[in-house]
Amino acid sequence: MTSVAGREAQAGSGEDRLIATYFAPLARHPGAFGLLDDAAALTPPPGCDIVLKTDAIIGGVHFLADDPAADVARKALRVNLSDLAAKGAAPAGFLLALAVPPSIGGDWLADFSRGLASDIEAYDCPLLGGDTDRSPGPVMVSIAAIGVLPQGTMVRRNGARPGDRVAVTGTIGDAAIGLRLRREPTLAERWRLAHRLCEHLIRRYRLPEPRNVLAAAVRGHAGATIDVSDGLAGDLAKLCRASGVSARIACARVPLSEGARQALAAEPELIEAVLTGGDDYEIVCAAAPARLDALRAAASEAGVALTDIGEIVAGDEPPQFLDPEGRPLAFAQPSYSHF
Amino acid sequence: MTSVAGREAQAGSGEDRLIATYFAPLARHPGAFGLLDDAAALTPPPGCDIVLKTDAIIGGVHFLADDPAADVARKALRVNLSDLAAKGAAPAGFLLALAVPPSIGGDWLADFSRGLASDIEAYDCPLLGGDTDRSPGPVMVSIAAIGVLPQGTMVRRNGARPGDRVAVTGTIGDAAIGLRLRREPTLAERWRLAHRLCEHLIRRYRLPEPRNVLAAAVRGHAGATIDVSDGLAGDLAKLCRASGVSARIACARVPLSEGARQALAAEPELIEAVLTGGDDYEIVCAAAPARLDALRAAASEAGVALTDIGEIVAGDEPPQFLDPEGRPLAFAQPSYSHF
Repeated sequence: MTSVAGREAQAGSGEDRLIATYFAPLARHPGAFGLLDDAAALTPPPGCDIVLKTDAIIGGVHFLADDPAADVARKALRVNLSDLAAKGAAPAGFLLALAVPPSIGGDWLADFSRGLASDIEAYDCPLLGGDTDRSPGPVMVSIAAIGVLPQGTMVRRNGARPGDRVAVTGTIGDAAIGLRLRREPTLAERWRLAHRLCEHLIRRYRLPEPRNVLAAAVRGHAGATIDVSDGLAGDLAKLCRASGVSARIACARVPLSEGARQALAAEPELIEAVLTGGDDYEIVCAAAPARLDALRAAASEAGVALTDIGEIVAGDEPPQFLDPEGRPLAFAQPSYSHF
Repeated sequence: MTSVAGREAQAGSGEDRLIATYFAPLARHPGAFGLLDDAAALTPPPGCDIVLKTDAIIGGVHFLADDPAADVARKALRVNLSDLAAKGAAPAGFLLALAVPPSIGGDWLADFSRGLASDIEAYDCPLLGGDTDRSPGPVMVSIAAIGVLPQGTMVRRNGARPGDRVAVTGTIGDAAIGLRLRREPTLAERWRLAHRLCEHLIRRYRLPEPRNVLAAAVRGHAGATIDVSDGLAGDLAKLCRASGVSARIACARVPLSEGARQALAAEPELIEAVLTGGDDYEIVCAAAPARLDALRAAASEAGVALTDIGEIVAGDEPPQFLDPEGRPLAFAQPSYSHF
């Protein structure tokens, strides 16, 4: 804590003390002014565009009430970082609006700020400003993330062309299966999942791993991208609609973790949850075949798997997910939706 | 609604339809991409800094559950615009994170988006992106506002010097009195307030009037500024702490509306609510005496009152608010605080 923040903590209101104790120590960017001004100031690098994104997470909706506060903080930041990664932008900082019910005390806030601090460092994304409120409702964490990239280079959803390959980072479906395990622990036995595989799947729900290390590679090689937050099927459908194309995806090529593969073997119907459940925070992209090797090499160098799962085709129907016999799957609900 | 948004509305999820119906039509800035991408892109004007601010408002905390949705939207935007104004920045756009309980339907959302549309135009502050969620709690509107100003010219809280004059825009205390009237309508009779004065006071609570027309003047002439959101006493105390100074304010010079003056005449104890109640969204600033006339002239040209209420003095005690006999007032709670 800086001495100014310390003075503020003594002199100000309860809200000032809370900010000085838990958040000012995180705000080391000079433009955050130690959270002691009305707003932050950023000098954008010359020739750059600013990329802007906001996503909120709410207790009981996007995370469970007993999730560790450190993970809640990190998830709130990471779901926004994932969008920056998909668009090819480097993180420049973020604003935090936090509303907490009266039941939330200092321990929770201390844990929350510890989690935030570790991701601020891990993703080099400084806290620039924020707002804290008491709320009669659940915890709500609303983050606005600011990214930068060379002018005019943001990777859009609308650049996919027939003939492009469709590739996805990491593994798909872990979070959807992890959430089921979290809610119904007996499923682990039914699916014959070892403890470590359960832990991996649940962790993938609780703490996304956005692919910010791939931002430059995505910008250099992908024609269209979207981050997978509402499910691969629904998000790829959005990319296809924006591009005026369709896609054919081989379900068997969709990358699965060991735990997801075992769960799916025990209960094949889980394929719908895997493809539509969401919370993956991977990047799905369309890339010209000639660019795919370079993209895969960059991913491999960054330690991230990148898997070719199908192709962009002409047409305006939703992407088809084909089973091993070439039959398209039908989904009851193709995408997570709040409404 | 654009044809692409129309198509999205037919093809997508309930959330896509909601965005396409109520929000995409507002997102006319080219960098908002019709809300059909993961993020927005802004090209900052050369030689400019980006000013960033987030503030959330919550039903039952910052507004009342039966406030018109259009006013809720406008208040959410305006409390952020007020910070940009105080810092001397011109609005460049905003991000909106909206969480609504299941009881909120299409009528409310339509009214909300109408209110937002009118302020987007009035303040020339485009909607750049957003996030909509169902929430088990109250309505929560979290906005992140982005402003621009010439590099290095953001007006800070920490530039006040002994000898500076303290000036404030508009009138102070209306919102605090308006909120009391809203909660306890019989007070109107006790204070002998005409209907139109009550309406004015209540409206000042429901719908702030941020002083964005003064941004350039503030930047040109003020040494230190803060927007008055938590009460004049508390916010001026923050400015003084940041600047390492104190202040002496003449209560009799604090500008009051006709309604506030009448209420105060009927109930002198209201002076504490006037000075500490908050929700004013005026600008209080410290300016060298030689700059005050220019600042006042610019304000007058913009149709905004600017009143000299006292002076910055050396010292590190909180600002003193002096009654007509020169005695300092003591406040039970000098500033609104959520914690």
